[in-house]
Amino acid sequence: MDNFTFQSPTKIIFGKGAEHQVGKEARSHGGKVLLHYGGGSIKRTGLYDRVVQSLNEAGVEVVELAGAQPNPRLSLVYEGIELCRKENIDLILAVGGGSTIDSSKAIAMGVPYKGDVWDFFTGKADAQTALPVGVVLTLPAAGSEASDSCVITKEDGWLKRGYGSQLIRPVFAIMNPELTFTLPPYQTACGAADIMAHIMERYFTNTKGVDFTDYLSEATLKTIIKHIPVVLEDPENYESRAQIMWAGTIAHNDLLSTGRVGDWASHQIEHELSGIYDVPHGAGLAVVFPAWMKYVYKHDIERFVQFAVRVWNAEQDFFNPEQTALEGIRRLEDFFRSIGLPVRLSELDIPNDRLEEMAEKTKKGADGKVGQFVKLTTKDVLNILRLAE
Amino acid sequence: MDNFTFQSPTKIIFGKGAEHQVGKEARSHGGKVLLHYGGGSIKRTGLYDRVVQSLNEAGVEVVELAGAQPNPRLSLVYEGIELCRKENIDLILAVGGGSTIDSSKAIAMGVPYKGDVWDFFTGKADAQTALPVGVVLTLPAAGSEASDSCVITKEDGWLKRGYGSQLIRPVFAIMNPELTFTLPPYQTACGAADIMAHIMERYFTNTKGVDFTDYLSEATLKTIIKHIPVVLEDPENYESRAQIMWAGTIAHNDLLSTGRVGDWASHQIEHELSGIYDVPHGAGLAVVFPAWMKYVYKHDIERFVQFAVRVWNAEQDFFNPEQTALEGIRRLEDFFRSIGLPVRLSELDIPNDRLEEMAEKTKKGADGKVGQFVKLTTKDVLNILRLAE
Repeated sequence: MDNFTFQSPTKIIFGKGAEHQVGKEARSHGGKVLLHYGGGSIKRTGLYDRVVQSLNEAGVEVVELAGAQPNPRLSLVYEGIELCRKENIDLILAVGGGSTIDSSKAIAMGVPYKGDVWDFFTGKADAQTALPVGVVLTLPAAGSEASDSCVITKEDGWLKRGYGSQLIRPVFAIMNPELTFTLPPYQTACGAADIMAHIMERYFTNTKGVDFTDYLSEATLKTIIKHIPVVLEDPENYESRAQIMWAGTIAHNDLLSTGRVGDWASHQIEHELSGIYDVPHGAGLAVVFPAWMKYVYKHDIERFVQFAVRVWNAEQDFFNPEQTALEGIRRLEDFFRSIGLPVRLSELDIPNDRLEEMAEKTKKGADGKVGQFVKLTTKDVLNILRLAE
Repeated sequence: MDNFTFQSPTKIIFGKGAEHQVGKEARSHGGKVLLHYGGGSIKRTGLYDRVVQSLNEAGVEVVELAGAQPNPRLSLVYEGIELCRKENIDLILAVGGGSTIDSSKAIAMGVPYKGDVWDFFTGKADAQTALPVGVVLTLPAAGSEASDSCVITKEDGWLKRGYGSQLIRPVFAIMNPELTFTLPPYQTACGAADIMAHIMERYFTNTKGVDFTDYLSEATLKTIIKHIPVVLEDPENYESRAQIMWAGTIAHNDLLSTGRVGDWASHQIEHELSGIYDVPHGAGLAVVFPAWMKYVYKHDIERFVQFAVRVWNAEQDFFNPEQTALEGIRRLEDFFRSIGLPVRLSELDIPNDRLEEMAEKTKKGADGKVGQFVKLTTKDVLNILRLAE
């Protein structure tokens, strides 16, 4: 196990009606919030009204910024930064999923920074301070509600880049599983793929002596695998929605990576894919991850056997570990298919004429370092994309 | 799943040589610390010197209070409170295990409180503020390094009582598994029983829809069960010591009780036992827990079957669930025995002439409420103690 520092101080307020506590929580961080959200869905469901009412009742002044969209855009971040400066905002309140939260985090870092906020994403500068971010979560997927990271897309060149800092871990996250009852099946499934990918990126490691976080990761994966089919059948199943929502947070708050080095190649590859084609992140991951596995499993057959046996209950073939390893990958792919996700680029309507470009952008976007479990060359990335065709 | 609020903000600094960071961490909380510890063991191992050197190098002024002992005493807490007031202490630094940490937490609450600190433990008052507590952990067991609770023994009447508050979660916990290499086998085993008890107290619940925390709890139990025999054979096995140490923290930082009601009867019963006979808490739990299980398993056979199958890999008898349930309890008891722990009162040299008194004290100490999974009468507690004879 590697040495590590871990601190995940986000206050989680979880359960039925939790959103009614948002006013009180927000008030403890100041008198004026930027209410940041996406489109009209939170208005249709009535969540917007409940949040605004709770904020008003707590005496919190509200400034609004709508328009956060999947693969959140840098231009809106700039707009948010200006607005916060003009209005002297104390707290940014993200109401939505990972895109809204990531957009809020970027705004939060940008407000006190004198330069261009994009500097953080290109490695030119490190954030020294940030406004606090609070969350009312509507979509279990990105895990951004308690993570230290955010991903922003710069429209000029469709560059999708991430940045991480303890400064942008949300100060609170309000999580009511009932808010996820109305999620369409495809979005629920994409969320599952995102959550599972967060766990698997950490699971496939070269670090030895990480039994405890292996077991915890398997526990979190099994929770998603068991409960996603339930909510696809029965969208208003509170207990299953609750398991998924809480597991989605733990999948990405860094507990599961304590003391180990993760891989993240699949995320790096997928970023370029959804950067260019604007497909849902989870759908892109469902395509890339099995292809990545097929390409790298020989690097550590035992780990893939453990994955197959402990996560997927595959029967172990003691005399042919490779077969067991491949069975685990097959089951992952079958699972994605069974919940309605694409597992090939063609199923995402992505043609094969820009694979080289994507491979090169992946390598460039990652500063030349793609993957840790297996360090990938541009050619490797291209081979993985071809396996995903 | 029940609604919950969860916040565990303790900064964990984990790994080889981690204690060298104590000066820097302490300094960020002020210029003057009370260094609280037990006996001479931290001096013999050199840890004391390394901690003091790190504090000195960071410009932190040190006041010392030694003498914390197992089942930490109220009289020393009083002494610590006076010392902190006199010396204007900014941070209490506990160097040791759960007893030292709990003693530090009680001192931390007592310093700013005008009344008697024992008021918190009798339910007469709630803590409104406390000094920050930092930790250098030497013993994986109590989980106090990231928990919100502490247990103190009042010598007058040998009353052992607990209190919990977010205010006393340590601000940082420095955890170097190498510091546990020198633990004697019996102390290692007692720590394991304590850790496992923390998980099992949460595991046996009547709350439905708690699959995720069930899986996480099983993961943490399996980690202890797998790695304790390794370190009993090979005390300097860093990887296994590390798994145990980190699992011991997660066992008790409340992640595993999110959204569910725990039981805690075994702890309540054991407190009276070690209160009177001053036996190690973990050894007392190894005696009480299997007896409690034998007494209550019929309340929810399915949960005990799940425990047997998923934690102990017991083969499930689908036609005789009771047999599978009992097999799980048997394996727990066998495990405790195999790591050198007592599983009967007689093995702790506790006579059977004060069982009634202990049962009555348990009931009284818990304000009449013993257990949640099954609510126990004084007679029930007595029956459990008799099963443990």
